[in-house]
Amino acid sequence: MSANTQIKQEITALIDRHDFAKLKKFLEPWQPMDLAPIIADLPVGELAALFRVSPRELAAATFTYMPAESQKKMLYVLTQDQVAALLNALPPDDRTAFLHKLPLDLAMQLLAMLSPGERQVAQSLLAYPEHSVGRMMTLDFVAVRPEWTVRESLDYIREHGYDRETLNIIFVVDEDGHLLDDIRVRRLLLSPLDRPVRELLDGNFTMLSPVDDREKALEIFRKFDRVALPVTDEYRKLIGIVTVDDMLDVASAEATEDIQKLGGSEALDEPYTTIALHKMVKKRASWLVVLFLGELLTATAMSFFEGEIQKAVVLALFVPLVISSGGNAGSQAATLVIRALALGEFRLGDWWRVMRRELAAGLALGLILGTIGFLRIALWAQFSHIYGDHWPLVAVTVGVSLVGVVLWGSLMGSMLPLILKRLGFDPATSSAPFVATLVDVTGLIIYFSVAYAFMHGVLL
Amino acid sequence: MSANTQIKQEITALIDRHDFAKLKKFLEPWQPMDLAPIIADLPVGELAALFRVSPRELAAATFTYMPAESQKKMLYVLTQDQVAALLNALPPDDRTAFLHKLPLDLAMQLLAMLSPGERQVAQSLLAYPEHSVGRMMTLDFVAVRPEWTVRESLDYIREHGYDRETLNIIFVVDEDGHLLDDIRVRRLLLSPLDRPVRELLDGNFTMLSPVDDREKALEIFRKFDRVALPVTDEYRKLIGIVTVDDMLDVASAEATEDIQKLGGSEALDEPYTTIALHKMVKKRASWLVVLFLGELLTATAMSFFEGEIQKAVVLALFVPLVISSGGNAGSQAATLVIRALALGEFRLGDWWRVMRRELAAGLALGLILGTIGFLRIALWAQFSHIYGDHWPLVAVTVGVSLVGVVLWGSLMGSMLPLILKRLGFDPATSSAPFVATLVDVTGLIIYFSVAYAFMHGVLL
Repeated sequence: MSANTQIKQEITALIDRHDFAKLKKFLEPWQPMDLAPIIADLPVGELAALFRVSPRELAAATFTYMPAESQKKMLYVLTQDQVAALLNALPPDDRTAFLHKLPLDLAMQLLAMLSPGERQVAQSLLAYPEHSVGRMMTLDFVAVRPEWTVRESLDYIREHGYDRETLNIIFVVDEDGHLLDDIRVRRLLLSPLDRPVRELLDGNFTMLSPVDDREKALEIFRKFDRVALPVTDEYRKLIGIVTVDDMLDVASAEATEDIQKLGGSEALDEPYTTIALHKMVKKRASWLVVLFLGELLTATAMSFFEGEIQKAVVLALFVPLVISSGGNAGSQAATLVIRALALGEFRLGDWWRVMRRELAAGLALGLILGTIGFLRIALWAQFSHIYGDHWPLVAVTVGVSLVGVVLWGSLMGSMLPLILKRLGFDPATSSAPFVATLVDVTGLIIYFSVAYAFMHGVLL
Repeated sequence: MSANTQIKQEITALIDRHDFAKLKKFLEPWQPMDLAPIIADLPVGELAALFRVSPRELAAATFTYMPAESQKKMLYVLTQDQVAALLNALPPDDRTAFLHKLPLDLAMQLLAMLSPGERQVAQSLLAYPEHSVGRMMTLDFVAVRPEWTVRESLDYIREHGYDRETLNIIFVVDEDGHLLDDIRVRRLLLSPLDRPVRELLDGNFTMLSPVDDREKALEIFRKFDRVALPVTDEYRKLIGIVTVDDMLDVASAEATEDIQKLGGSEALDEPYTTIALHKMVKKRASWLVVLFLGELLTATAMSFFEGEIQKAVVLALFVPLVISSGGNAGSQAATLVIRALALGEFRLGDWWRVMRRELAAGLALGLILGTIGFLRIALWAQFSHIYGDHWPLVAVTVGVSLVGVVLWGSLMGSMLPLILKRLGFDPATSSAPFVATLVDVTGLIIYFSVAYAFMHGVLL
């Protein structure tokens, strides 16, 4: 007879004699990791008795060392209060590991027993991705059964509803917890008290999965005007709900993220006023450096035209004007297209429609700016000799370049977000500064090519 | 005896004899504007009888020609159905004029009698400003009285709630319709049935005014996690409610507006895909032209340095690089500050804190870009003679300019939104392109001044 068997027999004997005081004393000196393997194969009834008399920390720690099968058995023999105490005493990571071994709906039931603080930790540890529905769902919903009457349901709600997140939507589940329907509480309130819940169902409901992105949830809330949506596991078991008040925060956070990206920075993920300075500099520097490296190409491009500039310095004067006009047009187009994409106003397949619009808009905008540019130079030349004798050539070059650059900027700005999305990136990455940088480089080439075409043999 | 008196006597006689068939025939040939002054001072009882037998259009039209006092009297003697029929038959503008003469809470009660379509028209005509709470409020709420029990309230809701927008929040009003409190329906559901509503009140509620901006409503919803908020008139009478589902649309619309402005365009106010091309071009052109006019200053600034460029063409090569780095840094800072302002993360009074942050961040970012710029030129010069013998001067000029321009861009970008807000403009007006344009002009001055300082006597 091994030492372990001896110990087991002693424990069994103490339990049989209901000598819990002595049992308690007997357990006290044990280390959890030593005790676990010894008691693992005791009958569950005895295990439960053992756990009931153990100090809470010992019980919790021992629990974590037990094989998964024994752990599951324990859940069924302990009272709800005992399970709650046990779970709350588990270290978060062990708890997560344990919950992960359970079917999702059982895990959710256990999560609901945790204190709110512990639960939040557990939920984020349950490996739901950041910004997922699983991270924001609450477990405090009210579920009724289809065979109950309206009166029974209202009584149930009166008894159990006090700590639930919302009573505006009542969920209807079968005996295994599968979601059958959700009904607005108004249906209960407006129906005769003796009608069975079954007759109130319209089978019209939308489910979320815990791994859905919060943006998807937002879209559905917006579309269906609901105040709460059910979250179900892969077997359609109800595991939680998401409420609309969280959606207002999501809407705001998503807009912030898009806006910050559009401004040419990584999303800060923290309030501007409280984020640590070095973190903010890091997030801003990464994009600024990328843009800077891109912008270095302008120096390279310019160096190709050094000869032209040497011959006609007047050309250099309009470089900033021409390239930033293209950048501005591009920023506009990119922002409009990115927002329209985010709102689901069109799909990638509609790119040709967008391109046609931007061709027309870009041409119109280019003609407006080109005309102003031409007139400005023509007018100035009447009062000053700054543009030389060949000012008409300068005016035409700047005017025509502006048409080309603005048109090109509008096309780049509108198509880049679509291309990025097609490649699986966030379209908001093609921020205003990003588009402006790209258009700067190409704008230079357009400008000097136009200049060459018009001035060749005269100034160049 | 005047003709009018004679006609009045005839009508009175017919009503007295209950000869409604003959009365109907007698009224048929009349024009509303002729009939109105004649019957205006009849006793209200007779007026009501007259309206009951008149064809609906005649009654409605006649009503619009009656003095306000008589109109008001009519409301009290007609049945609710008759009032509803009368109101629905009124032309929208006359109806608005009429409603405007009434106390707001009475006007709202009448609005509630209109068909949904007519009501929407009436609500927008009631002169609530665009984007105001008044335009989005609904009149279909449930109000109970404090002296009722929970059971009476639930019975009342069961009877009257079917066509109400939400039953999630129940409003409690006194006999004159003054708002006393709002309670979540859960409080009714969770309370003993014989408890008076008075005992459920916590006096904890927030009211909106119909002239409040929808953005204010959004803020309150976000803060208090409510699903519906009451709208009251200046006497605290409940006139309508706003529900959270509309807020998701408001949040989205407000973000769209901000994003489009940040992209350097007017807010489109219509979806990108469906707005008429000429409208979109107009909204985009206005800002592009403003930016272009600003950008024209770069040509002016450059012309001041024409001599320097002539002497050292190499300077021109780095103009786009230097000024757009400043623009990018400015866009970043502006976007972050505008969003933080929109989210209420700080106030105008905190400008000094923001400025200190941007001083530090701008300096750090400038040093990073300046170093890269310096190294790029130094490295290139080892392999190419493009920057001439004085490449170290060029490298130092570009590096130092970058520090100055990026720092300056960050400061401008962060302070401009605050200045705009202080002057009463929308901070989002200081869009990325707007800041970039401003920084372009000043960036040129910084760049050439630095160049002059370092190259004076050598290259310049």
